[in-house]
Amino acid sequence: MIRHTVVFRLKHPPGSAAEAAFLEAARALAAIPGVQAFEALRQVSPKNDYQFGLSMEFADEAAYRGYDRHPDHVAFVRDRWLPEVAAFMEIDYEPM
Amino acid sequence: MIRHTVVFRLKHPPGSAAEAAFLEAARALAAIPGVQAFEALRQVSPKNDYQFGLSMEFADEAAYRGYDRHPDHVAFVRDRWLPEVAAFMEIDYEPM
Repeated sequence: MIRHTVVFRLKHPPGSAAEAAFLEAARALAAIPGVQAFEALRQVSPKNDYQFGLSMEFADEAAYRGYDRHPDHVAFVRDRWLPEVAAFMEIDYEPM
Repeated sequence: MIRHTVVFRLKHPPGSAAEAAFLEAARALAAIPGVQAFEALRQVSPKNDYQFGLSMEFADEAAYRGYDRHPDHVAFVRDRWLPEVAAFMEIDYEPM
């Protein structure tokens, strides 16, 4: 199992319609084949400047690669992520 | 529910006995009252320089504070975390 997470901050004002629209578009990633345990999260620690997180799990590397290359993911990154996200960090975990 | 996570890199050489001893000590945090869904994780994304992660969940802020102040947690931070961790970032999530 690989848990893919990304923590991020948007360019949009907090509570704005643009923020809500982005988060709704992000939730649609859950429908891409191979995505399990999808979560849209609010980042609440005052020790970093990120606002939100996405977390999802894949059975293996092949499933993760399939998601990464899927046209819906590629379009989301191009059309929503790159123009609307101010800062982000990807963190991927495997059980030990 | 609050999910407290921390991603980190150790000062120890990868695969060393010191690394294993640190991770064993970290796993003992799971026994502190209020800690749920504890996970010790390997960070595998090449897009950051962290090696490991810890993830745990608390029912609410009070349970999280109780963990933070617990003598076993305070001792772990003082005796193991501060001397042995090279870099880290805390990320806390709540469901949206």
